[in-house]
Amino acid sequence: MHHSRDPVVLTKLRELGQEIYNQLLSGDFPKISIPSRSTNNIKFDNELRQFVLGDQRITRSAANIKQIRSFTQLMWVAYFASKLVKEGKSSTLRDLYYHSLNYGVKFRGQKESDDTVTDLESILEVPREAFNIFPKERSAIFGDLTIEYTTPEEYKGRRVNLASNPDGVMIGLSVAHAEFIETSADKVFAIEKNAVFRRFIEERVHKKYNAILVDTAGQAPRLARLLLRRLNKELGLPIYIITDADCWGMHIAMVIISGSANAAHLHELTTPDAKWLGLWATDIKRYNLPSFPLTKLDELRLQALEQDPRYRDFFWQKEIQEFKRARRRAELEAFSAHGLAAIVEKYLPKKLKEVQEAA
Amino acid sequence: MHHSRDPVVLTKLRELGQEIYNQLLSGDFPKISIPSRSTNNIKFDNELRQFVLGDQRITRSAANIKQIRSFTQLMWVAYFASKLVKEGKSSTLRDLYYHSLNYGVKFRGQKESDDTVTDLESILEVPREAFNIFPKERSAIFGDLTIEYTTPEEYKGRRVNLASNPDGVMIGLSVAHAEFIETSADKVFAIEKNAVFRRFIEERVHKKYNAILVDTAGQAPRLARLLLRRLNKELGLPIYIITDADCWGMHIAMVIISGSANAAHLHELTTPDAKWLGLWATDIKRYNLPSFPLTKLDELRLQALEQDPRYRDFFWQKEIQEFKRARRRAELEAFSAHGLAAIVEKYLPKKLKEVQEAA
Repeated sequence: MHHSRDPVVLTKLRELGQEIYNQLLSGDFPKISIPSRSTNNIKFDNELRQFVLGDQRITRSAANIKQIRSFTQLMWVAYFASKLVKEGKSSTLRDLYYHSLNYGVKFRGQKESDDTVTDLESILEVPREAFNIFPKERSAIFGDLTIEYTTPEEYKGRRVNLASNPDGVMIGLSVAHAEFIETSADKVFAIEKNAVFRRFIEERVHKKYNAILVDTAGQAPRLARLLLRRLNKELGLPIYIITDADCWGMHIAMVIISGSANAAHLHELTTPDAKWLGLWATDIKRYNLPSFPLTKLDELRLQALEQDPRYRDFFWQKEIQEFKRARRRAELEAFSAHGLAAIVEKYLPKKLKEVQEAA
Repeated sequence: MHHSRDPVVLTKLRELGQEIYNQLLSGDFPKISIPSRSTNNIKFDNELRQFVLGDQRITRSAANIKQIRSFTQLMWVAYFASKLVKEGKSSTLRDLYYHSLNYGVKFRGQKESDDTVTDLESILEVPREAFNIFPKERSAIFGDLTIEYTTPEEYKGRRVNLASNPDGVMIGLSVAHAEFIETSADKVFAIEKNAVFRRFIEERVHKKYNAILVDTAGQAPRLARLLLRRLNKELGLPIYIITDADCWGMHIAMVIISGSANAAHLHELTTPDAKWLGLWATDIKRYNLPSFPLTKLDELRLQALEQDPRYRDFFWQKEIQEFKRARRRAELEAFSAHGLAAIVEKYLPKKLKEVQEAA
């Protein structure tokens, strides 16, 4: 559990600062060791079923004229993070960049300050959300789950049921970090598209399937991934991911399951037991879905995924081969060709049964 | 008020169908008259303070070989709409396009089916939301407003307070069409960006300013515009719009206030009394905000807006001239250079006072 004033994060930040002070007090140029995030230090861990960093580390030293700039930037970002956690305030990567402009800490652009935040993540071994830097919210949740807020302060202890608004509730800091109190649900559907999320609510999938529904709004933001992981780990609910039948949809599922290479330094955002329910490449033909030819970009992306260690299992390779063979992709909305409720009435029960039996 | 089974819309659809049947029964080729949406029939109405259609109409006739295709498409879309309203089901433009594929009603692509939906809007004089075709949801609301749901059926009569979730609640069909029961708010802030919406919640702007907060997530979707209009007209709350200081942000404000040219056939989505609070072009210098040079695209867009009748008032022309003179733009997050809370503590009270006094 992360809180906006998480004492663990604050302790880690204090230790980092103490280390620098100690070096200064003993008359040394301060330096700091950071896990290397270069490609040759990113490995796939079969136990964790996600990318992790290897043992290589790099050093940033105030004694090195080439490193003093990035050393200072890192110190400032750590200072900013500790200020956020102490004051219980939140921020964005964009805010941090603008805020730096008034401190004489020069970043060449936001790319550089973003990278420094990632450095701090890998030193502290927590995602930036733990020190209150959040991306834009766009994912939503709906279903019978009663939560108790832990943040912000004035909401602490207040409970709400996430079926209270039929349009869905935004997944922000407060929802992602709330305590789970009670649910009648026995599974979660994570859906790539808002239109299909709404279709599921309208067709009462939450009731018919005892399900919590999550709208990931494309690639699931980190808070949505954190929440899915918690629903799986803390409540034991199976997570079923529903996307378009194309390499981008397939990869939305994969990132929820196995994470991304650029978050290889973080180990609390993945849900290795989540399942990709569909649409599979093989579903296009099987359900006679209107489809489109692959673009050049789709084909290049498939080639890249074919080599990706996350995709080496037989199941994923088979899907990649089928996309390459058929050279077609289809959207979730394509089911509407068979009636607006077809995705819920015809597809969902059949596919769910298959995936459950295969597990 | 629109409902998903709105009897007014159903009556209009029935009358349209009846008209066709009557022509067929009297042995005539059926035809239908549609308000023209061509550029020379779009006029700015000074009373309504929005674009409206002039008196020109076009005819689609089954007797004309060139029109029989579009006539048939229109009939099918009207049939689809009446099915949606009768069954209380919702749909998207994308669903409608896919659904048509199984009816032998050929559209060359989604552009053509989208245009046919707009034809039906202008015949019925209601937005497509009234016959249950909705865009993707991405806007959100937060604040002390108790609503009573009117849709879907199982939520009818249930009440919820929109401050119950500190991450915000999605503005979908159910929220946009709910009855307003009670509020302590005396104003609404409509904010272009989720990061600033969250900042406002965190700094407790809703309490300090007795405000309801709306995250428009860029250009306000139609349901958000409908909700803002209703908050203004039904509850008498002033609406203050907060955007980036650039021509795109300015236009987000303008579309909430005066609507868009391609919705000239609709008169229930605008809030003529809403005010653009900022960031104005003049705010960049005044608040010493980090800024960026205009792009070529920004400059072209400013030239177009300069000629646009919605922008002919002195206030708007002054802002356009200032953007053109300074050739700079700034983002809302730029205030973070002066401290994370600067936008709330320094900017908001000052600007609000000025705009209120000018009104």
